[in-house]
Amino acid sequence: MGTSRSFTDEERRTWAPLTAVLELLPSRVDAQLMRDEGLTHFDYATLSMLALADDRRMRMSELATGVNATLSRLSHAISRLEARGLVRRAPTPGDARATTVELTPDGRRKVIRATPQHVRTVRELVFDALDDEQRHQLHEITVALLSRLDPDQRMLASRMS
Amino acid sequence: MGTSRSFTDEERRTWAPLTAVLELLPSRVDAQLMRDEGLTHFDYATLSMLALADDRRMRMSELATGVNATLSRLSHAISRLEARGLVRRAPTPGDARATTVELTPDGRRKVIRATPQHVRTVRELVFDALDDEQRHQLHEITVALLSRLDPDQRMLASRMS
Repeated sequence: MGTSRSFTDEERRTWAPLTAVLELLPSRVDAQLMRDEGLTHFDYATLSMLALADDRRMRMSELATGVNATLSRLSHAISRLEARGLVRRAPTPGDARATTVELTPDGRRKVIRATPQHVRTVRELVFDALDDEQRHQLHEITVALLSRLDPDQRMLASRMS
Repeated sequence: MGTSRSFTDEERRTWAPLTAVLELLPSRVDAQLMRDEGLTHFDYATLSMLALADDRRMRMSELATGVNATLSRLSHAISRLEARGLVRRAPTPGDARATTVELTPDGRRKVIRATPQHVRTVRELVFDALDDEQRHQLHEITVALLSRLDPDQRMLASRMS
């Protein structure tokens, strides 16, 4: 690729719409979930990761990996979700230093109620805009970018290719 | 695409790495600019848009379109950049109600100094991870997504395809 000190025209043609997508897509996904359920996309991802886990509980460290977050960011979100009765913290059997988070029955109902409209939103904004080949290309491209963004595969998504 | 109430496995396989990229890429680009120049990527995009404009000045409304932002978000950024002496607000000749923003000489030097490392970072994280064909695909895909995210083409990036 370019070795010039500023973007080439071709690089700019690719980077400009990508930065626009990076700006607009997360805020649109957040806006729908916030309006309909009072959840950020990060909250929703956290709750739905727990809903899919065995016994609907995970260690904080595993959960952080699953939602592409640092422990500190996750911990703030868990505190807010715990205050709303959607999750609760519990000791981890056999490991006094580790914290486990579990989904409460209210949290489970919340995920079940929030999912259909969230899925419709992502289909509308992403999947329906692309044909089969482009959806496949998008998968390959994002996996390639993750190999740069997360070379040690600390995030679960980096290990799913 | 799917009509089920939750994501299909294939949709999940595409959406999971995309959400990871949406999380990680902006924060990596921000982190480099913040560490080296004390600028967010949004600040940098604002300054470099002005640097490319005629006479290095733009109306607030045009500049907002150029950086994919609402006027209110841009206005906050401009206030911070103005306090640092990098831009200044000025009246718009012939339109008493419109505000123009211009890059100061310090602002211009800031963009010139910040650009090479920012460009290297984006090349490392994005362009160098992809081959020519994938870079072209990424352009086509992001343009297609923008047609959903910004159907009225309010953002400049939506008009650049």
